[in-house]
Amino acid sequence: MPIFKQKWFCEDTVPGKRFGKIKHCFLIDKLVFKGKSPYQEILIFDNPVYGRIFVLDGIVQLSETDEHIYHEMITHPILFSHPNPQKVLIVGGGDGGALREVLKHPVKEVYLVDIDKKVIEISEKYLPFVSEGAFNDKRLKLFIGDGVKFIKKFKDYFDIVIIDSNDPVGPSLALYSANFYKEVFKSLKKEGMMVAQIGSFLDFKNLVKKAFLKLKKIFAYVQIYKLTIPSYHCGEYCFIGASKKINLNKTDFKQIKKRFDKLNLLIQTRYYSPEIHFASITIPKPWRI
Amino acid sequence: MPIFKQKWFCEDTVPGKRFGKIKHCFLIDKLVFKGKSPYQEILIFDNPVYGRIFVLDGIVQLSETDEHIYHEMITHPILFSHPNPQKVLIVGGGDGGALREVLKHPVKEVYLVDIDKKVIEISEKYLPFVSEGAFNDKRLKLFIGDGVKFIKKFKDYFDIVIIDSNDPVGPSLALYSANFYKEVFKSLKKEGMMVAQIGSFLDFKNLVKKAFLKLKKIFAYVQIYKLTIPSYHCGEYCFIGASKKINLNKTDFKQIKKRFDKLNLLIQTRYYSPEIHFASITIPKPWRI
Repeated sequence: MPIFKQKWFCEDTVPGKRFGKIKHCFLIDKLVFKGKSPYQEILIFDNPVYGRIFVLDGIVQLSETDEHIYHEMITHPILFSHPNPQKVLIVGGGDGGALREVLKHPVKEVYLVDIDKKVIEISEKYLPFVSEGAFNDKRLKLFIGDGVKFIKKFKDYFDIVIIDSNDPVGPSLALYSANFYKEVFKSLKKEGMMVAQIGSFLDFKNLVKKAFLKLKKIFAYVQIYKLTIPSYHCGEYCFIGASKKINLNKTDFKQIKKRFDKLNLLIQTRYYSPEIHFASITIPKPWRI
Repeated sequence: MPIFKQKWFCEDTVPGKRFGKIKHCFLIDKLVFKGKSPYQEILIFDNPVYGRIFVLDGIVQLSETDEHIYHEMITHPILFSHPNPQKVLIVGGGDGGALREVLKHPVKEVYLVDIDKKVIEISEKYLPFVSEGAFNDKRLKLFIGDGVKFIKKFKDYFDIVIIDSNDPVGPSLALYSANFYKEVFKSLKKEGMMVAQIGSFLDFKNLVKKAFLKLKKIFAYVQIYKLTIPSYHCGEYCFIGASKKINLNKTDFKQIKKRFDKLNLLIQTRYYSPEIHFASITIPKPWRI
């Protein structure tokens, strides 16, 4: 449960060793939405520093100021690592931010499956700067349902699977299991790859290392992407990529730069660049596994 | 003034647009020291996530968990960018962390000038993991005094000047002025360079850009180094380097790697590596000036 004291929202429910030992508090200028879906508590408010902030089950999901860092980095590094991504699945991502970025590539179809219809509705209404109309794109196939069940329908189908979930609490917990990762593997073509949000290096030994080791048993290559999302307040944060055939650490900078320029993404991105992509896979020593 | 509510310390005094709009609170497991020097309020306590935390005037200076990121990144990128650093000045840095890292290089003499004797005493007593005995090194020349006045005594003398200060509050404010940067320039030899802690990209337009533009009027090359310090809770944080003759963006990776290996720094550093050095100078588009 989010804690309200006067006009403050304090995040203190992040799982892992930080639980109950650190609080990050945001002044609420304006309470925009507060309610419950069948799956989670939803809170949206405006803060003078970060702009509009979207919270699920007491955990900050995104802020207006820095959601572009999250959404560009969970999509472009993996899409540019694949030689020709045509079919993409987003599990979660009901706010539409990852979808918005994927659609900047010449993909043929994007499946998005989110368990919580209310998140999509509320996001479209109160966070229009996130999806930017992406839910109207003809390439989108939108499903409301359980990603764990949904993915079992597909074998050798997707080029890319993006797992854009909350931390491992509530409905997102199952998306961190080895069984789910195995289903992701099966749903992917032979050059397929996946990426998942995996947490902060502060909780490294816990969340990140566990996910790394699970994925390493299933995929040929596993790669951490490091980045920082100011509103998450946890220093270095990471996404984890896994690939069947292509080494995510040995992609060709020049090829990626060429595609980036051809898509005119320098204009369309605010944070990602091929240079940032390669900087993000430079992992400090203690975090190498 | 730090705010105490029960057993919590909340930082809400960071200057810039975040002031009073965000709070970062740390559970106090054990209060280690609380007192005043003639210059500032000093607080040291233990937190279950970050270990021992050192606070000046309500602003977190370092934590046991991540001080190595700060101290390695404020020293090694600039020292490795210089072909042969022999004489180094540290302005501030009374905790001894930057000193500890500088002494890993074959420097001949390190001057350290801090205005606050009490910070050095308290640090040696309660934060021994920071200086690790560096204050006993024979290459150190320690001075208590005002860095702004001190640096005026030196012309064409130092290879490197490191400004390791608090945010621009209290005694640190003068260390952000163009006049001080001019004195730093004069104190440096013709291949000389400096580095300063400059704040968070969250306050980019304010602190970082101002410092960049001031330095660009004085030095031939100015370079931002980006990094993340989890206990600072502000996402991407930066140090700013400035150099008279050597382009800090065009240093030779192989040369740096060779020196790094020769000094056996792979064993002696926990975060810095030549790879991280080059990743840290990869600046996202909106932050290019």
